[in-house]
Amino acid sequence: MRQHIALIALLGGIPVALGIWPIPRSLETGTSALKLAPDFTIELNVHNPPADLSAAVSRSANYIKTDKLEQLVVGRGASNSSAVSRAPQLKSLTLSLEPGSTVHSIMDEAIKEIGTRSEEYKLDVPASGESATLTANSTLGLLRGLTTFEQLWYDLSGDTYTIQAPISVIDTPAYPFRGFMLDTARNFFNVSDIKRTLDAMSWVKISQFHWHVVDSQSFPLQIPGFMEVSQKGAYSSSMVYTPEDVQDIVQYAGERGIDVMVEIDIPGHTSVFSESHPDFVACAEASPWATFASEPPAGQLRFASATVKNFTAGLLTEVAKMFPSSIMSTGGDELNTECYAQDPETQATLKETGQDLQQALSVFMQAAQGALQTQGKTPAVWEEMVLDNNVTLSNDTVVLVWISSMDAAAVAAKNFRIVHAPSDYFYLDCGAGEWVGDDPEANSWCDPFKTWQKSYTFDPLANLTEAQTSLVLGGEQLLWTEQSSPANLDPIVWPRAASSAEVFWTGATLPGGEPRNGTEALPRLHDVAFRMAQRGIRAIPLQPLWCALRPGKCNVDS
Amino acid sequence: MRQHIALIALLGGIPVALGIWPIPRSLETGTSALKLAPDFTIELNVHNPPADLSAAVSRSANYIKTDKLEQLVVGRGASNSSAVSRAPQLKSLTLSLEPGSTVHSIMDEAIKEIGTRSEEYKLDVPASGESATLTANSTLGLLRGLTTFEQLWYDLSGDTYTIQAPISVIDTPAYPFRGFMLDTARNFFNVSDIKRTLDAMSWVKISQFHWHVVDSQSFPLQIPGFMEVSQKGAYSSSMVYTPEDVQDIVQYAGERGIDVMVEIDIPGHTSVFSESHPDFVACAEASPWATFASEPPAGQLRFASATVKNFTAGLLTEVAKMFPSSIMSTGGDELNTECYAQDPETQATLKETGQDLQQALSVFMQAAQGALQTQGKTPAVWEEMVLDNNVTLSNDTVVLVWISSMDAAAVAAKNFRIVHAPSDYFYLDCGAGEWVGDDPEANSWCDPFKTWQKSYTFDPLANLTEAQTSLVLGGEQLLWTEQSSPANLDPIVWPRAASSAEVFWTGATLPGGEPRNGTEALPRLHDVAFRMAQRGIRAIPLQPLWCALRPGKCNVDS
Repeated sequence: MRQHIALIALLGGIPVALGIWPIPRSLETGTSALKLAPDFTIELNVHNPPADLSAAVSRSANYIKTDKLEQLVVGRGASNSSAVSRAPQLKSLTLSLEPGSTVHSIMDEAIKEIGTRSEEYKLDVPASGESATLTANSTLGLLRGLTTFEQLWYDLSGDTYTIQAPISVIDTPAYPFRGFMLDTARNFFNVSDIKRTLDAMSWVKISQFHWHVVDSQSFPLQIPGFMEVSQKGAYSSSMVYTPEDVQDIVQYAGERGIDVMVEIDIPGHTSVFSESHPDFVACAEASPWATFASEPPAGQLRFASATVKNFTAGLLTEVAKMFPSSIMSTGGDELNTECYAQDPETQATLKETGQDLQQALSVFMQAAQGALQTQGKTPAVWEEMVLDNNVTLSNDTVVLVWISSMDAAAVAAKNFRIVHAPSDYFYLDCGAGEWVGDDPEANSWCDPFKTWQKSYTFDPLANLTEAQTSLVLGGEQLLWTEQSSPANLDPIVWPRAASSAEVFWTGATLPGGEPRNGTEALPRLHDVAFRMAQRGIRAIPLQPLWCALRPGKCNVDS
Repeated sequence: MRQHIALIALLGGIPVALGIWPIPRSLETGTSALKLAPDFTIELNVHNPPADLSAAVSRSANYIKTDKLEQLVVGRGASNSSAVSRAPQLKSLTLSLEPGSTVHSIMDEAIKEIGTRSEEYKLDVPASGESATLTANSTLGLLRGLTTFEQLWYDLSGDTYTIQAPISVIDTPAYPFRGFMLDTARNFFNVSDIKRTLDAMSWVKISQFHWHVVDSQSFPLQIPGFMEVSQKGAYSSSMVYTPEDVQDIVQYAGERGIDVMVEIDIPGHTSVFSESHPDFVACAEASPWATFASEPPAGQLRFASATVKNFTAGLLTEVAKMFPSSIMSTGGDELNTECYAQDPETQATLKETGQDLQQALSVFMQAAQGALQTQGKTPAVWEEMVLDNNVTLSNDTVVLVWISSMDAAAVAAKNFRIVHAPSDYFYLDCGAGEWVGDDPEANSWCDPFKTWQKSYTFDPLANLTEAQTSLVLGGEQLLWTEQSSPANLDPIVWPRAASSAEVFWTGATLPGGEPRNGTEALPRLHDVAFRMAQRGIRAIPLQPLWCALRPGKCNVDS
């Protein structure tokens, strides 16, 4: 019944003071004021703590000190003034691992095979005791708990306080894959932009960075042994990710509980290989592009060629070595068959080998997946590889559903594991207008804009049978960057991408079984946005400040 | 025939090297390389130049030195290397006023009555001579010419060059009112945000800052004698514009050739007055808000009351004194009559005075406009004041058409001057989702997103008779800020707001009479965005960099 009590606390009129996002699976709150002692400390009761856990504690202590987020109500919490001045002081938060837990770094826990990570934690903040406690059976769980703890506090004239003590949280995510995808190929992003995004992701407990690092437009990834590809295919010699950059990003992510799934999108979306290996690419920059590709420039790997197959497998092998994650994507979306129908080289190869295009694709994909598996990776693909092509894939392949949320059922019917990435709920770039050419009446192909409200209603189990529910690993929001750059990265992503973070942490319904409720969520999401802003993220306001300070007053019927 | 030649130069295959925006009314270019001498200077051949002209020259010289914008082509201009190394050097640009011109500050020229400002200039850059010349008959014209001159240059390994010398420009805007509107009431913007925006506006020769400074949600404008309104109605004591801030902004704008039209939106959109003067406001924060207002919170001035009328006239008088512009807006959009129908105080007043609501409104508006006129201001209003209400307005009233571009004809039929601000072309906030409440299927009321392409097709003379064309003063793009803040100001505005800047500078058609052409414009607009980025504006990319570097390759049919 704990969960039920939690929900009453959340929905019963007090939510404004509780900015926790995502909602814990179990949460109990009181009505007492409590403030942090001036010398408040976070004690790490872990023997030989890994460096990234100590660093996480330092970051948390710093956020708690510097957030200075005032309550989002009229008066910004001034009405709590006398309660806060009289409030008992919390002197410390003590972190411990459950007895018998083995101590690994946060990063080592975060990059474990999906489904084997432990993110659960238990957090108790007393109404009047001297110390709060956070326990978990992994350092990753402690990180998640710290993130929750940071969200409990508001600032009032220098006091850091809550008015809902005692607070008791028992928490664990509904799904392990809570992701965000960034495309760094259409336009380039600096390492600092990616790190800033990883920070924000970690604050809402996103666990997976899906890095769509290369595409037809540019190839910024430097790959040892394949340096010519980025040398010719990057936008410039400075618009690259060196192996050191990759290691830096992977480490930065891991320390924040985030695993990096890199994607090398093949065999489509590969025009850029023609810069370094012109013989490998069919219909490279062919005109009109619309005949040969979903967007300019056209160009796809000649996958029927044994040379191309071996080159690709070799390249994937080297990429796999750069990323410690247990999962890696080979993309596979939007393969254009007309490109090959009009490609004399491909047609000659097919005739020579006696294969049709699908058979050649199957051979190619087996080589690609084989390269990943040799490196210990679980392969991931976009949905077409399963639904549109007659390709034999490894049984453990993870399938990202993007074209429509409706397609999850078809993927499940083929018994593949699913990551929800549907354009109709989770594409952050939709609704910003058509970027191709000059049609003044054209809108983005996936209009309209996907609001946080829309994303928030996503049901991870829609159209699936009870038996298929275990196939769902989670989901992600995505930013394709045809019209994005560091200039608008923060505002186009935040706080919207927090929507799916809660959907996949909290699950198909709220902990008590009720449907998710945007009216309840909005004040908490305002909190997310304002706290992010305090930490330097350019998150947009979801409403006029007048509304943010008056929860419920800007609902349709209020 | 000059204009015809200009257009051939623009459309005949060379546009990629010419980033001028807006297109001059007459432009001739050659094919010679020319670079700036290392000691290139801008000489001001003006006796006793006003300080803001000298400052403009310094800014220009600095931009030319620091822009470091490489040409947007593959190789970033490297193919010009040998031509540039051999190119003659331009030692100076000399600015002069036409003989007989009176010397005023740029600001004094910029804030003149609309229709009396002179922005014309003549710019000649030789293919091999030592000096370029810029002449105008006003300092404002010199500023416009400097802005054009800055746009001629690219960087190649430290050389600042053009490959299109000689360049000859004779230019003057088609319309005097080329505007941008910012709402600082739904969410607050700092003075620095406004100044940064004014800078970017000036770079595309926008002449008018329409400052929608207050609204129902907040009242950040400090008005001498009416300090209680902002004291109670600002979001916080730091979210205000002091009289010194206003002077600072007005001066900053004026020095950059921009006039500031402030708007005090009355009698609707005035809920915030209830914080300081509860007796003055009908249906203040009434529920459900949708019955009484277009967006929360409800609340409108009790305009039938003589006290309110006198208070408002007094307030407008003081605001008028703060702004040196000759134009000022009293808003007047979205007046809700139900609010007054249900307001006992208003009904009592009407009964007492024997007026109906429209008569009372007419009296109120005459008082409001009278206050402006006493201060020497031309009054401006939103279209409803002319089209929906039976109100007697001053003949010289300027009417902003916003609901639909189609409404311009009806305003013209009433013989009022027009500023085009139509939501169906120029609202920058459209398409970002519904911000009210919790309907996951709701989109913004003015969906879809208004692309630059759409804005660019706007015809200032559509549906007007020949005789009515002189009623058009120009137009503006607008940012309502329910979902905007400094976090996304730059990316939501730039480079899109440059669209209307060209529409209203260049006119209903291109100089040669041809329709505007988005395909021709796109490479130039990329240039605008990239040059803005070099100057610290977070302008978004309109396309993948691959497309920006290959003009035409990402058109629908290429």
